[in-house]
Amino acid sequence: MVISLITDFGNKDYFVGVMKGVILSICPNTNIVDISHEIEPHNIDEAGFVISKSYNFFPAGTVHLVVVDPGVGSSRKILMAKTKDYFFVMPDNGIISWILKNEEKIDVFELKKTNILTDSPSSTFHGRDIMAPVAAKIASEKSLKGLGIKTQNFIKTDTAIPKISVNKIEGQVIYYDHFGNLITNIHKNDYHNLCKNTGKKEASIKIAGKDIKKICKNYSEGTKKKLNAIWGSHEHLELFLKEGNAKADCNIDKKEKVEIIFKCKS
Amino acid sequence: MVISLITDFGNKDYFVGVMKGVILSICPNTNIVDISHEIEPHNIDEAGFVISKSYNFFPAGTVHLVVVDPGVGSSRKILMAKTKDYFFVMPDNGIISWILKNEEKIDVFELKKTNILTDSPSSTFHGRDIMAPVAAKIASEKSLKGLGIKTQNFIKTDTAIPKISVNKIEGQVIYYDHFGNLITNIHKNDYHNLCKNTGKKEASIKIAGKDIKKICKNYSEGTKKKLNAIWGSHEHLELFLKEGNAKADCNIDKKEKVEIIFKCKS
Amino acid sequence: MVISLITDFGNKDYFVGVMKGVILSICPNTNIVDISHEIEPHNIDEAGFVISKSYNFFPAGTVHLVVVDPGVGSSRKILMAKTKDYFFVMPDNGIISWILKNEEKIDVFELKKTNILTDSPSSTFHGRDIMAPVAAKIASEKSLKGLGIKTQNFIKTDTAIPKISVNKIEGQVIYYDHFGNLITNIHKNDYHNLCKNTGKKEASIKIAGKDIKKICKNYSEGTKKKLNAIWGSHEHLELFLKEGNAKADCNIDKKEKVEIIFKCKS
Repeated sequence: MVISLITDFGNKDYFVGVMKGVILSICPNTNIVDISHEIEPHNIDEAGFVISKSYNFFPAGTVHLVVVDPGVGSSRKILMAKTKDYFFVMPDNGIISWILKNEEKIDVFELKKTNILTDSPSSTFHGRDIMAPVAAKIASEKSLKGLGIKTQNFIKTDTAIPKISVNKIEGQVIYYDHFGNLITNIHKNDYHNLCKNTGKKEASIKIAGKDIKKICKNYSEGTKKKLNAIWGSHEHLELFLKEGNAKADCNIDKKEKVEIIFKCKS
Repeated sequence: MVISLITDFGNKDYFVGVMKGVILSICPNTNIVDISHEIEPHNIDEAGFVISKSYNFFPAGTVHLVVVDPGVGSSRKILMAKTKDYFFVMPDNGIISWILKNEEKIDVFELKKTNILTDSPSSTFHGRDIMAPVAAKIASEKSLKGLGIKTQNFIKTDTAIPKISVNKIEGQVIYYDHFGNLITNIHKNDYHNLCKNTGKKEASIKIAGKDIKKICKNYSEGTKKKLNAIWGSHEHLELFLKEGNAKADCNIDKKEKVEIIFKCKS
Repeated sequence: MVISLITDFGNKDYFVGVMKGVILSICPNTNIVDISHEIEPHNIDEAGFVISKSYNFFPAGTVHLVVVDPGVGSSRKILMAKTKDYFFVMPDNGIISWILKNEEKIDVFELKKTNILTDSPSSTFHGRDIMAPVAAKIASEKSLKGLGIKTQNFIKTDTAIPKISVNKIEGQVIYYDHFGNLITNIHKNDYHNLCKNTGKKEASIKIAGKDIKKICKNYSEGTKKKLNAIWGSHEHLELFLKEGNAKADCNIDKKEKVEIIFKCKS
């Protein structure tokens, strides 16, 4: 059994360690894989992007646990989901939209069984007291049975998918990677579909008052000291400085608007 | 078998990796769990706080290995301990006080078997050459037999427990968490016991010339731009800035005195 | 089965997590051990030093995967190697020199089987698409059979071994550790061999215009506020500030020349 973890707890404290202790107490021999604990605190979109790009590289049956939970202690719900191959556990705050957009068939459940570890969970650490125990239970039983009820009623975020109109895709910067590249919510398929539908192939990219004329095939094709664009290994539109760090040098914040505008041929 | 690790080695170097290699060479199939490798270098109290808040969330039989070891290479002893459910391995420098305070029954041993991996350990890396091999041996044999001798003679630190008098609890800041909250060595039980014994319920908190009048039930109850207090998920008194980072903004060092003073009713 | 990982991907992104997902999909129950993901981006020598100091502490049969790969997407080859006890997978960029220098018998292979995971690997993430699948395949079959062809034709770096002449060893700084110590490519054996061959025992160390007169036996022997030398637990010559951080305070870059000069007796 594999359980993957994504949190905004950082690697300094004992928070992730105790979640693992709880998991191994309920489901011994779990292979626990850290995806990231360095999500920007409370950033739903970062967590969503990271789970959306990683979950389908894991073995079938993996339970993916995402604890980025600004609403902990409030009455926000906890969700579970099941696709053909995977299980998911996360707070009800929009993260699930990033999985929904990839999946044709997915069942979503509201967690009801919150007392697997303790009848008196803390109000500030549901990762340890509720969600890790649930993930371990699912890993151990390979089923969501008895844990919750099916629901259609959950929070959706509109940042998981860019806005697409006749001649334009309007997205935003959602993530900085380790190398300082700026990653957007615009997927290669969004672009290719629009190319196909409109018969147009020439497009330019606008961000923060800058125009980018082409999409590079690899990083070395970029122009130095200018912002360049590429489809990254994640298949999203990525903005980079050749041999530089776009995050550090370009002063572009997360949520900055990015547009791909197709040129009229006439 | 589970072995947990706490060190001040950081995540950059290969030091933790080779300890894991050594463990798996002696006890294959161990599930090794990182609790933290970002303990402030040589900070005994941080290591003690972290092990005290995490060990009892692990499966029974877990071996907890703590390598924060400013005295490495000197004649300091290495300790092993056994409680009802857990084993511990650590240098003799006061860390054990943080476990003792939680446990009614604990046996402490001085390690004698220091040559499990090699007859010529390095003078600077006992984590790899002595303590990881011992932890692996314990995990593999589920026993301390043949590894050392029982002892009452070990170093105790007085920072694990605050000073309690008739009307006052005097503690100190011992840890900053990932969010910049200041965590003290004053446990909720210390406070409730004094409330009960004195029949008093009103208390104020003094730290660095500041007075804090109430203990919040959750973070959102705090007042902005002022230092607030809460019992954290660790059940220790924690000082926080609402939507801020107390470590970055309040200029309060570790070891700063914190007092809870009960008001006289007359 | 154990697979160890060294990369320059950092711990923030999902890159390492998906490599682990891929490994567990191909070879379930692998015990995956992180050695470091904080190698300075694209720094071959750091990666080489780290693998050279860690691999032989792992159980026999371990597959060591090193993904520091500035040439990803170019026509650079991927290498596999086999020693008596271990397997290695890495790009062909000089890292292998750091293993060769330790081993009398080693067979090197060029990877030919690049489609274990996918017939269309990305051009930017061969760690996920090619090398992790190969490492998992080796772990699962305990053999390199059918994966590549034996080769003598690969890139060697001359930084893995210092230059040794009659009276002098000339090396360089190759690594900063977590404590800010400066580690060189000069091994204790290089020094002792020259002592033995020349019959000389007195030597002084020159670096960045500074003279260091002795090699300390432990850190406490060092002189405060001066750069000191010691043979570290890695058995390389290491330069340190007593109770300080040499990296932060001494302004000495990686690749800085370090000389050990033996004095003439006449």
